[in-house]
Amino acid sequence: MNARMSPAPSSPSSSGTTLLVLDADPLPRLGRLTGRVRVEHADDSTLAEKLPYADALLVWDFASDAVRRAWPGEGPRPHWVHTASAGVDRLMCPELAACDTVVTNARGVFDQPIAEYVAALVLAMAKDLPRTWDLQRERSWRHRESQRVAGTRACVVGSGPIGRAIVRTLKALGVTTALVGRTPRTGIHGPAELDRLMARADWVVCAAPLTDETHGMFDARRFGMMQPSARFINVGRGQLVVERALAEALSKRWIAGAALDVFEHEPLGPESALWQLPGLIVSPHMSGDTIGWRDELGTQFLELYDLWAAGKPLRNVVDKKRGYVPGH
Amino acid sequence: MNARMSPAPSSPSSSGTTLLVLDADPLPRLGRLTGRVRVEHADDSTLAEKLPYADALLVWDFASDAVRRAWPGEGPRPHWVHTASAGVDRLMCPELAACDTVVTNARGVFDQPIAEYVAALVLAMAKDLPRTWDLQRERSWRHRESQRVAGTRACVVGSGPIGRAIVRTLKALGVTTALVGRTPRTGIHGPAELDRLMARADWVVCAAPLTDETHGMFDARRFGMMQPSARFINVGRGQLVVERALAEALSKRWIAGAALDVFEHEPLGPESALWQLPGLIVSPHMSGDTIGWRDELGTQFLELYDLWAAGKPLRNVVDKKRGYVPGH
Repeated sequence: MNARMSPAPSSPSSSGTTLLVLDADPLPRLGRLTGRVRVEHADDSTLAEKLPYADALLVWDFASDAVRRAWPGEGPRPHWVHTASAGVDRLMCPELAACDTVVTNARGVFDQPIAEYVAALVLAMAKDLPRTWDLQRERSWRHRESQRVAGTRACVVGSGPIGRAIVRTLKALGVTTALVGRTPRTGIHGPAELDRLMARADWVVCAAPLTDETHGMFDARRFGMMQPSARFINVGRGQLVVERALAEALSKRWIAGAALDVFEHEPLGPESALWQLPGLIVSPHMSGDTIGWRDELGTQFLELYDLWAAGKPLRNVVDKKRGYVPGH
Repeated sequence: MNARMSPAPSSPSSSGTTLLVLDADPLPRLGRLTGRVRVEHADDSTLAEKLPYADALLVWDFASDAVRRAWPGEGPRPHWVHTASAGVDRLMCPELAACDTVVTNARGVFDQPIAEYVAALVLAMAKDLPRTWDLQRERSWRHRESQRVAGTRACVVGSGPIGRAIVRTLKALGVTTALVGRTPRTGIHGPAELDRLMARADWVVCAAPLTDETHGMFDARRFGMMQPSARFINVGRGQLVVERALAEALSKRWIAGAALDVFEHEPLGPESALWQLPGLIVSPHMSGDTIGWRDELGTQFLELYDLWAAGKPLRNVVDKKRGYVPGH
């Protein structure tokens, strides 16, 4: 990790193969690659100049959009790009989609953590916990009736492993669930059924990938068709939601509440009106990040690296046109 | 409900049978008894004088301890007492325990709601939601790592239907559970194993009845043997916990957190130090009270009334010596 790239990036690598790592935070476990590959590091400002000399690129700083900006430049490009995130929206660009480079993602690492996080939000809202915290701060004993979760209905949008884990977890709590994906198949409703399913749901949970088709899909029309008692949860990407429309839906009480873990612009600035919107829970893009997640992401990358170095087929290969790993 | 008892309580009842109702709040569904029984009402100050003229007593105001105070008085006593609560600690006294009167409770109504409430607390603590609320109030974007719930261990104390529902719900979230009751049997550990199970638990959940044996069972010794990363949750009765010992355990970080829905003295006064104890979630005895709970309690009483009026055996009969309905 101390092997910062020298000023002459074309200097011969000791092993003949160069792994370029786009990183902001320290990255665990890469020491296992010592002697097997030359590991170089880049940041947002140096990625463009280093890309031509890399055989593989690990996007460890998954919040960066440097790849999308640097990729269209001159020179050769890495054969393989791995991103330590489930979504690939921040790095994809037409040039990357069109070339031969294989893109893999962190499919699997976040499924159960995010499903638990959604269950935590559903239960917290049903049991009125945010109000309980407010009242505790005021030292005020105020008994309220809360809601049963068992027997309610959820519509989960996004049929990848995260959406499916959310369905499993909510079902275990007795919630009746409907899963909506791009391609209808057994147990998964197609987009044509989304409006109908949203209109009857107590919980609408967004765990979809961000693509051209899903951008802004939760808009005023869709919030307007939800039940006044229903709540909306987004653990996908901020741009799936038209934030202004959600703010209006909450202010006008078209819906009863919402929780956003992701935002159009992250980090959410202190000036944002979302922080104080009535009925909205704001959390800082942390739904999938349980203790040990960086180790898991590191281990997952090393497993993929072993496959790549041995010339074997990779797992978690993203369909670059669709913008996600096609489902099973 | 307007048929308040006349000044001459010995006046003949129209039906020959008198149901006395100890109530503070309006009570749903009793209209169904019109013409079948004379319904009289009492409050804390009139219960003693009205008890001798009642054939049955419905304790709708389950937060009152008027029965315990009035029962030892002079005169005949009702043959049947039903309380609209799971715990009978507030009404039991030696004289009630020793006489022939049958006591029934609201067994069943609160099981699933309380289990969901415990799951809400477990998930909220694992996902650091209280801190998320604080940070939202401060408009502060602060990413943290949270905990996975699946794979953690819970020790649930109290093997009645509420404790068993808690175990089912936590298991559904992937938690490894141990259930502790008074009498060891298949799937239930005896009191001798409590210390060992508490010492290895990530979550200790109290859903035990309050009896002479369980009073103050969660004391400094037991909090001292919990893991520093563990949390304690009480949805049983306040007197099961030595609150001063819990406060010390939290202040000295013997344990990582706690949630109390019940207290030694309810309602908790604004002067209580518990409101601001670091790591403690305070809620106003609401874990079982989901929308419709009063209707459910009313329906349950009417079903028992039909059995009683027909001379059939009652359900939910409390073992008055033990202080709860013996388990299956």
